[in-house]
Amino acid sequence: MNESRKEFMREAIRLSIESVQKGGGPFGAVIVKDGKIIAGSANSVTIDNDPTAHAEVNAIRKASKILKTFDLSGCEIYTSCEPCPMCFGAIYWAHIDAIYYGNTKQDAKAIGFDDAFIYQELETPKNKRKIKAIPFLRDEAIISFELWDKNENRTDY
Amino acid sequence: MNESRKEFMREAIRLSIESVQKGGGPFGAVIVKDGKIIAGSANSVTIDNDPTAHAEVNAIRKASKILKTFDLSGCEIYTSCEPCPMCFGAIYWAHIDAIYYGNTKQDAKAIGFDDAFIYQELETPKNKRKIKAIPFLRDEAIISFELWDKNENRTDY
Repeated sequence: MNESRKEFMREAIRLSIESVQKGGGPFGAVIVKDGKIIAGSANSVTIDNDPTAHAEVNAIRKASKILKTFDLSGCEIYTSCEPCPMCFGAIYWAHIDAIYYGNTKQDAKAIGFDDAFIYQELETPKNKRKIKAIPFLRDEAIISFELWDKNENRTDY
Repeated sequence: MNESRKEFMREAIRLSIESVQKGGGPFGAVIVKDGKIIAGSANSVTIDNDPTAHAEVNAIRKASKILKTFDLSGCEIYTSCEPCPMCFGAIYWAHIDAIYYGNTKQDAKAIGFDDAFIYQELETPKNKRKIKAIPFLRDEAIISFELWDKNENRTDY
C-alpha cells in the first residue's frame, strides 16, 4: 500500500517538475480511485490565463469529467504541495476522501506564493482584510434561495 | 455610483434565479471592470458535472479568458452569495479589488450548503478534520520548488 502511495505522489511530483520545465507553476496533483490514478494535472495558471487553474482544481475537473459526476467520494488526492484555501474548498466540495501532500504552505511562501497570506486573511475580521467584502441587497438576493428551497425537483450537491 | 452597483448586483441575482429555474444551484456572479460587466455566470456544478463550477469561479474564468490575463486587478466581483473558501481563494489569486455579496454563508447553510462547514474545517486542527491531510515525501516534492526558484525565465503570478 505504501509503495502505491509513493507511486501516486511521485506522479504528482513528476507533473510539478515537468510544469516548471514547460514554464508553468511548480505544482502537480493526481486523483486516485480504487488504487489507480484516474486523472492528473499540473498548475496551468499562466499557460491557460486562468487564476483558478491550480493543479488540484485541474485534476478534480478532469476526474469529474472522466467519472461523469461532481461527487468524487471514494477518491484520494495526491498533491505536490499542501492545498491553498481555493483547492482545499474544491476538495471538500468534491467530497474527496483524503489528501496526501508534499511541500507545505510555508515552503510555498518561501518561493513567493500567497497561500499562507490567503489562509491568514480568512482568519482576519472582514473589515480589516486586504480585499473588502461588502454585504449588499440581501433582501433581493434571498429570492433565489427561497426558490431553491421550495424546488422539489432540484439536484442537491 | 450606487445605482450602478445595484444594477451589477441585480444581474448576479438574476443569474442566480435563472439558474434555479434551469435546475442549477441558486448562485450567480458578475465581474465588473471600468464600470461595466465584462463576464457573468451562474453555478453549474450539477449541469457541468464539475464540483469547482461555482458562480464566482466560472465568472473569474470567463473574465480571464476575455481579458487574456490571469490577473484581474482593477475588477470587482458582485456575487449573489458570500463566497465559500474555494471562491474566496479564487478571488484572492485573481487579485480582484472588492467583493459585493448578497446572501450570507449562514443563509447558504440554512438551505443545505456546506460553506459554513468548510470555513469551520479551516479553523480545525488538521488531525481533527473530516478529510485527513497527510504530509508525504516532502524531500522529493521540494525539487520542483528549487527548480522554480532558480528559473530566471519563470512567469510569476
